[in-house]
Amino acid sequence: MKGNRGLIMFEYKRKVNYYETDKMGVVHHSNYIRYLEEARCSWLEEIGMPMEAFEARDLTIPVLGVEVEYKNHITSGDVLIIRLKVTEFNGVRMTVEYETEDAATGKPVISARTRHCFTNSQLRPVSLKKYSREIYEKFMDLLESPKEGAEK
Amino acid sequence: MKGNRGLIMFEYKRKVNYYETDKMGVVHHSNYIRYLEEARCSWLEEIGMPMEAFEARDLTIPVLGVEVEYKNHITSGDVLIIRLKVTEFNGVRMTVEYETEDAATGKPVISARTRHCFTNSQLRPVSLKKYSREIYEKFMDLLESPKEGAEK
Amino acid sequence: MKGNRGLIMFEYKRKVNYYETDKMGVVHHSNYIRYLEEARCSWLEEIGMPMEAFEARDLTIPVLGVEVEYKNHITSGDVLIIRLKVTEFNGVRMTVEYETEDAATGKPVISARTRHCFTNSQLRPVSLKKYSREIYEKFMDLLESPKEGAEK
Amino acid sequence: MKGNRGLIMFEYKRKVNYYETDKMGVVHHSNYIRYLEEARCSWLEEIGMPMEAFEARDLTIPVLGVEVEYKNHITSGDVLIIRLKVTEFNGVRMTVEYETEDAATGKPVISARTRHCFTNSQLRPVSLKKYSREIYEKFMDLLESPKEGAEK
Repeated sequence: MKGNRGLIMFEYKRKVNYYETDKMGVVHHSNYIRYLEEARCSWLEEIGMPMEAFEARDLTIPVLGVEVEYKNHITSGDVLIIRLKVTEFNGVRMTVEYETEDAATGKPVISARTRHCFTNSQLRPVSLKKYSREIYEKFMDLLESPKEGAEK
Repeated sequence: MKGNRGLIMFEYKRKVNYYETDKMGVVHHSNYIRYLEEARCSWLEEIGMPMEAFEARDLTIPVLGVEVEYKNHITSGDVLIIRLKVTEFNGVRMTVEYETEDAATGKPVISARTRHCFTNSQLRPVSLKKYSREIYEKFMDLLESPKEGAEK
Repeated sequence: MKGNRGLIMFEYKRKVNYYETDKMGVVHHSNYIRYLEEARCSWLEEIGMPMEAFEARDLTIPVLGVEVEYKNHITSGDVLIIRLKVTEFNGVRMTVEYETEDAATGKPVISARTRHCFTNSQLRPVSLKKYSREIYEKFMDLLESPKEGAEK
Repeated sequence: MKGNRGLIMFEYKRKVNYYETDKMGVVHHSNYIRYLEEARCSWLEEIGMPMEAFEARDLTIPVLGVEVEYKNHITSGDVLIIRLKVTEFNGVRMTVEYETEDAATGKPVISARTRHCFTNSQLRPVSLKKYSREIYEKFMDLLESPKEGAEK
């Protein structure tokens, strides 16, 4: 990644449940997709725009794409730290990137990226800018504008 | 159970998926609750009243209670046979009982019972008799009327 | 329930995830079975005997039976409080009972009971008293002996 | 993709379960990752090497990476067709690609790719060529050798 994208950052921590393991003895790979959703929802709550606020406006945030690289296994009782970063947001699309670590060992667990759009409850895409100026501006405020030459 | 209830019967078969196991090496106990739902939905489809037909009438069939006895473990690749029996139906409440077996060994896996009501999509209980006479009568036709003295 | 059983008590709180809802708009009934497991694991951790300590001794705690009564629906973003109580423990069997409430409204969500045994990792039942005196006595210490006439 | 890779193909069909939907009214995006696993396991069974045959040799097939593009929603009762293609296999790594369609409408649902390695049950990577010549050669036989000039 380059540029000043990704200025929104958030950390989410959660313990792995027994029922999230499989007979390999570790977390089933599909569950990480769910942990990413938890992290996003927790972040939205943190910034004062919980999913329920979207739903109250008849909005939802479907997933357009998911990419995950699996690096190290964890299992029940382990604590996963997820650090998310919004790397793209324009009111129509949003991209979120995730780095994770096993809280006990510091080892990376997965790297991931999810891409999203915004839709109404009939799952028709909308532009947040037009649909809910309030939410759009809250996002834009969070995504600090690029400060060119800031390094000087 | 007594009387002539339980005359609706249906058999459902399904293979256990890898992701349904846990680190104990066997199916996680919560997944059987899902298999029971699959069996019910498959039965409703079989009798010409799939869940989608209920939904089209703004109806749904929530679960009021679940009881499961776990008897033998199965794991991924195993095939579970579920035999369900509707043991109570009066248009307001429905009880379904389940016996299961491991297709390979014939051993019982779980025994279960689920209790249900019928609601509209706002989850308000309704009487099928009043709400959808058509569905109510389809159920009643299936549940053959008790034949007192039939044993004679 | 009567007598002095059930003296071990523990409270567990958790927020409902989006992916735990179904198209009815509320938590899918199977997920409560998982929340109960979370509550048990959290309790075992609290009393210094996390599941990992059992696993390190080649022990596990399968579920023999589950009973759930569904009372009120909750959905994503809601917080569920689970209060568990061990109502039976003799080193061979354990029964746990659960009362729950929606943190926001105080309404009961489900009532439940789970029955367990203790097994080695080959899922053969064991008596904790013989198999791991240390764990057995820890449980027995927690389960305060009945104090007859304590009310006087 | 180029070259002659991807000659192994397989079709898997399955109906969407009610519990696989979320409050958006459609299949939760994480569940597709599970459907892909089902398709792989079903393919392995079809070619005479079910997961249980791997497990019997103390082998497993973890996922190294997942990429999914979500194109159209489906919901409970819908039937998903998954067509998988093995596009890379060298005894150490395997890549599988998936195209899917809604059986009723013919619309694409997701596109996906999963990358895998082979490990022993301690999750240590192995080379199938050395570890299980039998399985290695079965795969190589299936992956027909490139027939250059075959089009002539």
